[in-house]
Amino acid sequence: MYEYIPSLDKLIDKFRRLPGIGYKTAVRLAFGVLDMKDEDAKEFAQNILDVKTKIRRCKFCCDITENEVCDICSDDRRDTSTICVVEGSKDIAALEKINEYKGLYHVLGGLLSPMDGIGPERLNVKQLVARVSSGEIGEVILALNPSIEGEATGMYLSKLIKPFGVKVTRLAYGLPAGGELEYADELTLFRALECRQEID
Amino acid sequence: MYEYIPSLDKLIDKFRRLPGIGYKTAVRLAFGVLDMKDEDAKEFAQNILDVKTKIRRCKFCCDITENEVCDICSDDRRDTSTICVVEGSKDIAALEKINEYKGLYHVLGGLLSPMDGIGPERLNVKQLVARVSSGEIGEVILALNPSIEGEATGMYLSKLIKPFGVKVTRLAYGLPAGGELEYADELTLFRALECRQEID
Repeated sequence: MYEYIPSLDKLIDKFRRLPGIGYKTAVRLAFGVLDMKDEDAKEFAQNILDVKTKIRRCKFCCDITENEVCDICSDDRRDTSTICVVEGSKDIAALEKINEYKGLYHVLGGLLSPMDGIGPERLNVKQLVARVSSGEIGEVILALNPSIEGEATGMYLSKLIKPFGVKVTRLAYGLPAGGELEYADELTLFRALECRQEID
Repeated sequence: MYEYIPSLDKLIDKFRRLPGIGYKTAVRLAFGVLDMKDEDAKEFAQNILDVKTKIRRCKFCCDITENEVCDICSDDRRDTSTICVVEGSKDIAALEKINEYKGLYHVLGGLLSPMDGIGPERLNVKQLVARVSSGEIGEVILALNPSIEGEATGMYLSKLIKPFGVKVTRLAYGLPAGGELEYADELTLFRALECRQEID
């Protein structure tokens, strides 16, 4: 591979470590930094340091925050009897955008994956159990990816927290909006048929 | 748009300023930084600062370098009588990869584009004329993009430097390797036909 000058090569290498960035994109981004105003580049470097030093985990829901408790957990307009369990912060962003859910969240920080050595002790499961066992939670909504790992993690959590007397639900499976039935995969169709809803 | 916590939002905003990065990718990259080891993130920030402070322009060819003169201009195995004019450093990388050209380069830093207010004074044209007028250059190869701006810039440079008695050439136009004639655009086919080569 052609080598750029050392300082640029090092930056290219750092960009390549980011998810979904190949060599060509990394080169483009590094040249993008080179074309930035000095001031912006300084801010960029500082922003990277800030993200690593200022951000920590909310002591309740384990989501990222700059304070001890995140904005959602400290918002007294939220329904504190419902917890929606998600894999990561980006899922919270997706759910908050639809502006429908008013309860709290719990960030697992991943999904169970025995193949990759990810067991319950690697996820924020203990913290979830602690919240549920407080007796103030009425419903736990599992909002995990509709994948094998998501399903397995959901089953595991369900068995773990049901004994505390909470209602455990998961997001509905079915046809995605705007999709075409003709192109839906078999599992999606199977689930859409199985969970068909009565029209009244 | 959903707002992440401030320090993450600022980093997302910086990633968005890089070429070809939209909001969703910027979010993914910012979370990528959050997942980096502290040490790597510190290095990343330093690499960005280094790129802006260590890199300058070679005093001969105007390519990026960390020294006064770039590696190619200071390599005495290169043929100093030939200059290949390119738009930017990435074009040098592309040409060096084929390991065929042994002359020097000259980085224009852009292409003429009157619509965007880019005239010759915004490019490294003066420096090219200075090199050519030294009388030590036998051939100038124009290796600019086969676009309208590339053509126009090539014509302009050609008229400017031919009076110094140098041979001015440009890269050949024709069918790209591996392409299918059936799908070649009209201009490419026209040029390939016009510049057809005799087989001996």
